[in-house]
Amino acid sequence: MTRTAGSHGPTTQKAIQDAGLRLIHHHGYAAMSLRQLAGEVGLQVGSLYNHIRTKQDLLFDLLHGHMESLLTALDQALAETADPEDALRRFVAFHVDYHITRKAEVFICYSELRSLEPDNYAIIVGLRRGYERRLIAIIEQGVARGCFRVGDAPVAAYGILAMLTGVCTWFRPDGRLTAADLIDQYTAMVLNAVKGP
Amino acid sequence: MTRTAGSHGPTTQKAIQDAGLRLIHHHGYAAMSLRQLAGEVGLQVGSLYNHIRTKQDLLFDLLHGHMESLLTALDQALAETADPEDALRRFVAFHVDYHITRKAEVFICYSELRSLEPDNYAIIVGLRRGYERRLIAIIEQGVARGCFRVGDAPVAAYGILAMLTGVCTWFRPDGRLTAADLIDQYTAMVLNAVKGP
Repeated sequence: MTRTAGSHGPTTQKAIQDAGLRLIHHHGYAAMSLRQLAGEVGLQVGSLYNHIRTKQDLLFDLLHGHMESLLTALDQALAETADPEDALRRFVAFHVDYHITRKAEVFICYSELRSLEPDNYAIIVGLRRGYERRLIAIIEQGVARGCFRVGDAPVAAYGILAMLTGVCTWFRPDGRLTAADLIDQYTAMVLNAVKGP
Repeated sequence: MTRTAGSHGPTTQKAIQDAGLRLIHHHGYAAMSLRQLAGEVGLQVGSLYNHIRTKQDLLFDLLHGHMESLLTALDQALAETADPEDALRRFVAFHVDYHITRKAEVFICYSELRSLEPDNYAIIVGLRRGYERRLIAIIEQGVARGCFRVGDAPVAAYGILAMLTGVCTWFRPDGRLTAADLIDQYTAMVLNAVKGP
């Protein structure tokens, strides 16, 4: 589908990012050409360079924008809570809710990490670690207060993150389960998992 | 790295599959050319066609072989157990152990599902469903016997599978945690998650 956009400013920039996300999601970064991308937004390749310098910049901007938004939104979701169990409930609800509506971003954030140049890779992985650390800290606080029992907090956090992010691969908003049902069940499972028998 | 292989028989077939897996894992299916693949195994493109018909066949064979081995090995791991809790312990240990040694296969089984032609896609997704159904059945038996409590067995199964498969993205055999430690912690978390408070 060709999307025609104005030739200037943030509208074009947004159209390029949306088209880039779609193309990388469908075909992969290595297989996407800037010619194809220009075609998708109704620009000549030459004009595309007024908006993005390289294909690598586009990929980096997509992943960087995704991670920055995610971190900002998480901080809002966790604001003003000091109780680890409450924080974990909020984390689960936030993570599932945020991810089920951004399947393409989540997919390329995993499948195209390999395509980032070393400096870019380090930045994106650093942001991911920052996100993971928020969850690790919640679990560690819970362990310190005696309400959670886990062998190793980072290992517990990686497991929980994988479980919650996995919803992107199977959850359908029009399926038999609502997002609220899903969040209720996964909140219960995650709390049981870390609270122990 | 170029690997030279004999020009006949199963050795070449294996070398082609190994090289194909490596190239798809590093660059993506759409970006891999048969010329590149032939170069990796020290064959002319013309000779490659004696071993594989199309790039699509190669991808399908890789994913099909992976899923068939996985299902066979799971059946062995679960053989002669009728207790849901014991079966779930075996499932966790089996799944983690099998997956941490096959990261490339697991990666392309997720990232390149999009690249399968419709008939091939249906076959691979059917095999995956068969694997998922084994876990769903274990959970349902546990619920029926009153030892597990979950809202919805398939949703619980998808969460557990994502958590366990996620180890491929972060576990390092030379890290601070052994595979046995990992399996112990994840077995406890999964059992707690489904047994409830």
